[in-house]
Amino acid sequence: MRPQDVIRRKRDRGELSEDEIAFFVRGVTTGEWADYQAAALLMAIFLNGMSERERLALTAQMLRSGRTLDFSHISQPKVDKHSTGGVGDKTSLVLAPLAAALGLCVPMISGRGLGHTGGTLDKLEAIPGYRVRLSLDEFSAVLERVGFAMIGQTEEIAPADRKLYALRDVTATVESIPLIAASIMSKKLAEGLDGLVLDVKVGSGAFMKRRRDARALARALVEIGRGAAVRTVALLTYMDQPLGRAVGNALEVAEAIETLRGRGPRDLTHLCVELTAHMLVVGGTCDALERARQNARAGLRSGAGLEKLRQSIEAQGGNPSVVDDPSLLPRAQRVAELSSDEAGYVAALDAERVGVASMILGAGRVRVEDEIDPSVGIVLAKKIGDPVKRGETLARIHYNDERRLAEARDLLRSAYRFSDARPRRKGVIAEVIA
Amino acid sequence: MRPQDVIRRKRDRGELSEDEIAFFVRGVTTGEWADYQAAALLMAIFLNGMSERERLALTAQMLRSGRTLDFSHISQPKVDKHSTGGVGDKTSLVLAPLAAALGLCVPMISGRGLGHTGGTLDKLEAIPGYRVRLSLDEFSAVLERVGFAMIGQTEEIAPADRKLYALRDVTATVESIPLIAASIMSKKLAEGLDGLVLDVKVGSGAFMKRRRDARALARALVEIGRGAAVRTVALLTYMDQPLGRAVGNALEVAEAIETLRGRGPRDLTHLCVELTAHMLVVGGTCDALERARQNARAGLRSGAGLEKLRQSIEAQGGNPSVVDDPSLLPRAQRVAELSSDEAGYVAALDAERVGVASMILGAGRVRVEDEIDPSVGIVLAKKIGDPVKRGETLARIHYNDERRLAEARDLLRSAYRFSDARPRRKGVIAEVIA
Repeated sequence: MRPQDVIRRKRDRGELSEDEIAFFVRGVTTGEWADYQAAALLMAIFLNGMSERERLALTAQMLRSGRTLDFSHISQPKVDKHSTGGVGDKTSLVLAPLAAALGLCVPMISGRGLGHTGGTLDKLEAIPGYRVRLSLDEFSAVLERVGFAMIGQTEEIAPADRKLYALRDVTATVESIPLIAASIMSKKLAEGLDGLVLDVKVGSGAFMKRRRDARALARALVEIGRGAAVRTVALLTYMDQPLGRAVGNALEVAEAIETLRGRGPRDLTHLCVELTAHMLVVGGTCDALERARQNARAGLRSGAGLEKLRQSIEAQGGNPSVVDDPSLLPRAQRVAELSSDEAGYVAALDAERVGVASMILGAGRVRVEDEIDPSVGIVLAKKIGDPVKRGETLARIHYNDERRLAEARDLLRSAYRFSDARPRRKGVIAEVIA
Repeated sequence: MRPQDVIRRKRDRGELSEDEIAFFVRGVTTGEWADYQAAALLMAIFLNGMSERERLALTAQMLRSGRTLDFSHISQPKVDKHSTGGVGDKTSLVLAPLAAALGLCVPMISGRGLGHTGGTLDKLEAIPGYRVRLSLDEFSAVLERVGFAMIGQTEEIAPADRKLYALRDVTATVESIPLIAASIMSKKLAEGLDGLVLDVKVGSGAFMKRRRDARALARALVEIGRGAAVRTVALLTYMDQPLGRAVGNALEVAEAIETLRGRGPRDLTHLCVELTAHMLVVGGTCDALERARQNARAGLRSGAGLEKLRQSIEAQGGNPSVVDDPSLLPRAQRVAELSSDEAGYVAALDAERVGVASMILGAGRVRVEDEIDPSVGIVLAKKIGDPVKRGETLARIHYNDERRLAEARDLLRSAYRFSDARPRRKGVIAEVIA
């Protein structure tokens, strides 16, 4: 078998065999395939797609390229949640402790933010002392003690994915459903899960702008999960405007804590309850979704989720007092108000622009190697559907650098659109794909 | 501008600008584009195609990546012929001297054979002493003195093509009309031509198996020639069976000499006359094609073409006596006859199998670095339409290695198919695209 024969088959819209896919994934890791050959195949996959069988095989081979975790010594059902990335999305910080409090084991391996979307690891690192780099043994120990643990991607898990992702990034082959699906699932399946809940974002602030594409990705992800005997469900959720009110790392941690106290924004609370309920169902802890929702709400009311977050922060080296006193989180030196030039209702609030504005303030990275400032960000006072008077505050900008403020403020202002009539509010969840 | 933005545009079926194409070709030569980025773009071009404007720009940029020749000090019209490659195709050895004898200047830069197709350089090197590696100054001097000269591809001409071709070969992106067209034409336009005749082969032994593909390539080539103000015409010619009777380097030189004596096989002689006539027309030496054909035939009859070949062999260091005594060419030690098991008419004679059989004997290369044996090959006694009795000789196999004979003989036998009824003979020329 030669790489060019495999490339040729996909180029000519053929279906690759398991052996051919194994040859490719192994070859990329060992160097038997040159990068240019991998790049040619990636482009052929991008343009000609992959069948369900091919996607399953690709995921399985990428999974097999590295280590898989085994938490069979932990009796609780192992369930994780994965989001395709959004703006203001701090649901992991709420639902992981909540699900752990409700009897699940959540071995969460997360990513960092890039571009306009935030990353769970960056948010966690806003908590003074919190360590996201645990060894896999430490990870396992925290998981056993607390019920959930959160770390960054390690070198040991799915190395083929890291190699392929780096190549996709510089060859314009990122936005391919089979490649995205295999990348996500190879890492998630390495966690040794019983169940998985996927939050596939759709809308202006999401990776998938169109409902059709988001649905196709969700279906591909669910199929792969099923193929690997992991109970998997995907929620299509709107990312037209940011989730909750806070965008920026420490600000989002504070909002997550508020949400665990039962005082969070409605949209965020609703999504956290729904995702947690689905986790309980795929984990087998609850049979009925409505019952699972009641349990999730009860876990917020009782403070059980908050208590788990406190334990976890302590276990991962952070200062657990932030749970009681969020003012211990990093704080920006100044806060500027963005007030409205118009009166009416907020008709649109472009999530991507809010995300980029926050990135400009220093909350995100333009390049992988950029340092982030955990304290800066935006707190939205008005969201879609809210009435606004002229001069009223739309948002508060937490900043440290005067020069970055002006650009961020202009962009944030341009994210808002107004109308005279009250717009219909959309829910958070568009669709459930099981 | 970043490579991935250019790749993305082509991936999304956009048209690349001249600047983007220039950036790509320059980047491939300088290393500003990584090989994997070039490979991704090549696959996107393969699958999404290129507009006429893009093909012209790609050719122009590849041409500009190297040196271009200037023969403006030679007063004769500069005209060349290029073939996409076939089996038994020794037309260059006939028409270059013939056209030179008829007043054209033919600066021919040729290639080597690979796979089942032969290459002009390998045939020339079957002539004892013949040097195909002339410096460009020597090339120019021979051209001026003799009227034609033949050398191999140099490092100085279209280096971007060499780089891209190597990459295409290992990424399954060879068979792409825009890429083939730009590759051929960037090298031919470097010869500083007034006119160009293209012989685009179609059929089982050709690179293009289907008439539709061959026609599309011919059109693309002619468009690029026109775009560069070179009078260009393309002949679509059949390559279902080998051209002439001889396949193998020294055997083909001998057949070319016979043809220059006016005693060549009909199909080969006809094609040489047609191609030469078109060269005379695009070169402006003749206005009418029929008149040009008469001149070409006269050049064969008078021996003027043969005389030019003699001069050229002498000028390029070879032994000119081979023209009078072909037995001075390398000869295989043994000749085996392939006799027919069947009676009837030859209905098909698969050119590719004949080519591969000849390659197995040692006349061609499986890999670029293989040495070839100039003496071996096949002489076909029977071609399509010929009646055959049981036991009659179909072909003679000139060989040096007993172990290779059996395999070549079986393959050669399988190239023949017979029928009871006499099949319709096809002409040589399928179509003229001007």
